[in-house]
Amino acid sequence: MKIIEGGVTAARGFSANGVHCGIRKNRTKRDLCLIVSDRPASAAAVYTTNLVKGAPLIVTKEHLENGVARAVICNSGNANTCNADGIDVANRMCKIASDALGIAEDDIVVASTGVIGEPLSTEPVAAGIGELVAGLGDHSDLAAEAIMTTDTKVKSVAVSFEIGGVECRLGGIAKGSGMIHPNMATMLVFITTDCSVTPGAIKAALSADVKNTFNMVSIDGDTSTNDMVTVLANGASGSPAVTEDGEYFAEFMKALNTVTVALCRMIAADGEGATKLLECAVTGAQSEQIAKVAAKSVVCSSLTKAAMFGADANWGRVLCAIGYSGAPVDVTAIGVSFSSRAGEVEVCRDGAGIPFSEEVAKAVLSEDEITIKVSLGDGPYSASAWGCDLTYDYVKINGDYRT
Amino acid sequence: MKIIEGGVTAARGFSANGVHCGIRKNRTKRDLCLIVSDRPASAAAVYTTNLVKGAPLIVTKEHLENGVARAVICNSGNANTCNADGIDVANRMCKIASDALGIAEDDIVVASTGVIGEPLSTEPVAAGIGELVAGLGDHSDLAAEAIMTTDTKVKSVAVSFEIGGVECRLGGIAKGSGMIHPNMATMLVFITTDCSVTPGAIKAALSADVKNTFNMVSIDGDTSTNDMVTVLANGASGSPAVTEDGEYFAEFMKALNTVTVALCRMIAADGEGATKLLECAVTGAQSEQIAKVAAKSVVCSSLTKAAMFGADANWGRVLCAIGYSGAPVDVTAIGVSFSSRAGEVEVCRDGAGIPFSEEVAKAVLSEDEITIKVSLGDGPYSASAWGCDLTYDYVKINGDYRT
Repeated sequence: MKIIEGGVTAARGFSANGVHCGIRKNRTKRDLCLIVSDRPASAAAVYTTNLVKGAPLIVTKEHLENGVARAVICNSGNANTCNADGIDVANRMCKIASDALGIAEDDIVVASTGVIGEPLSTEPVAAGIGELVAGLGDHSDLAAEAIMTTDTKVKSVAVSFEIGGVECRLGGIAKGSGMIHPNMATMLVFITTDCSVTPGAIKAALSADVKNTFNMVSIDGDTSTNDMVTVLANGASGSPAVTEDGEYFAEFMKALNTVTVALCRMIAADGEGATKLLECAVTGAQSEQIAKVAAKSVVCSSLTKAAMFGADANWGRVLCAIGYSGAPVDVTAIGVSFSSRAGEVEVCRDGAGIPFSEEVAKAVLSEDEITIKVSLGDGPYSASAWGCDLTYDYVKINGDYRT
Repeated sequence: MKIIEGGVTAARGFSANGVHCGIRKNRTKRDLCLIVSDRPASAAAVYTTNLVKGAPLIVTKEHLENGVARAVICNSGNANTCNADGIDVANRMCKIASDALGIAEDDIVVASTGVIGEPLSTEPVAAGIGELVAGLGDHSDLAAEAIMTTDTKVKSVAVSFEIGGVECRLGGIAKGSGMIHPNMATMLVFITTDCSVTPGAIKAALSADVKNTFNMVSIDGDTSTNDMVTVLANGASGSPAVTEDGEYFAEFMKALNTVTVALCRMIAADGEGATKLLECAVTGAQSEQIAKVAAKSVVCSSLTKAAMFGADANWGRVLCAIGYSGAPVDVTAIGVSFSSRAGEVEVCRDGAGIPFSEEVAKAVLSEDEITIKVSLGDGPYSASAWGCDLTYDYVKINGDYRT
């Protein structure tokens, strides 16, 4: 497997584009994205667990019931959530894309991100669709730009891998926990592949993968109303079919996981106001669930996040976060190390502090990618969670009054 | 019932003091507190649910097994947690107090707050105990000062009330979610009363009360290793005995609740870096549990907390926090208003936004005590939770490198 260029257009048969249609006031910001497959694709999606769900998610869920889709349309600038006419608006967006592309409405995945509780007019979408469709091509980055809100970087990655001797490609774009002023953080991920995958297998693969990847990312503990991850597999590579119980499933999962972990890291690193990517890698757990709960509690702890911002080797906060996580662990068996490009420093063994060099610790924690290694000394299971530090800018981005 | 002066020494038969003994380096900061009853008192305590527990909590729990105590000794500057000799050190603190006061070791409640994972020497305690005991008197404020860490204000309140025609007093001091640089936030609350209360009744009263008060306070979602709330009732008022099933229990609960709610509000308002006290008052819930879960989720939401700092009437974040709280609610029935001394503004009805004056909203949210009123439209239950805004100073206090 190797990393390649191209994002969502790395896979054969996919084209994409992103334009400014006028939902956002700033004319330099693209706000409408389209991803299209030249043939029907197996498709699956996972959605936010928030009871408050954006209208586009409800429409997309309906459209994906048959496990097939051909296009994704997504706007930024307005989440189309908590609006009385939300479902109608999401359906109209699909209709506009359907008419312009000549494909069925129920083959369209629709998503929105931005302000919630403000009506979304489809007029800009109708006005911009012509330019959007006319410009379809290898424009994954334009599509990725069009879904950004306060993200500071385009998030895109793709891999090349083999299924039964046939080269396949899988790539994705994401927007992270940036937030449209003044509203919701939303994580949107669109993944495409030219591998041939049955609808059942794509659903199973995505569901299994997100448990270890996107569900293990936290920026601030707030779960958005509009989160969605979707995968389209159009089979354009001519590969043998990946089925849920077949011999190629594991190989496909590996490719998918490589892309999703890379996107998770990008999303966490670009969390609002973040200066550092944090990974908490828990090993030695009695169960996978315990490893996950402990890892997530650490990356969600405001105290730990603030300490990492300050390059403070404050391992007590890590122990504290594990202690209140609800995971049944033996606190007297916990070990903690901090690690980064600059080296590694062990700070806690058997639940108690050990002498360490504050200088080395500060050097380790001054890097921009930090791994908090936690060993529970209790079993063979492990898990990772990703997050970011808590900074002045997080407060600034989320606290400033709407202008 | 009326509010009176005196904190933990308002009740007859209690004396207190606070001195600097040398655990903290800053000589101007008191770091050792003593509260003494002139006779045995019914006593009960509740402790942190964190699996990582400070050694003093373990010793105190043993001492309170018989439901009787006479004194509280507490230091700041070091939490005596995650230390191999922690239990031994906590026992030695009790021994020192026991010798100086001439009371049994197991009649002493011991607590510590401050840095975790650093050995605590009892030498300063032994050196300071003489001055501490010699100065015992109506010095509730000195005791309250000695337990402060980064708290900016002394937290103290007392009430006078009647049990069977006899005037009783109940008062408390607290330290909040300030944090000793560079470590744990700890909530400590010491309450005294001269009301006559059986050990069973005091335990029942405290357990019932904390569920609606201290357990509903959140500064940053991190649960300290050393949290403890303790009540001593010495009967010095000569009141008839309050028993769990007796006629006076409800009256006693009312006095206790008045003091604990006041302390909760002080703790939340003085959260680290806080500029505003937030109360989320949920009504119309299907059950008390649902009301509590929803209220707590709102005051714990980083996004809501940052919006309140910015005086931003961002009701979408309130809805979002209820949506991911896990409480089963009908989101299309939710109403939200913001209220403060400056007035009240309704912003959301039936789960959707309604037009409101941004100017009025800004005025309401610019006050330093804000109530977020949530109606779930689903039943008769209600609950309140207390928290504070998320500010630059929170990050500063918790992110700066140890010096």
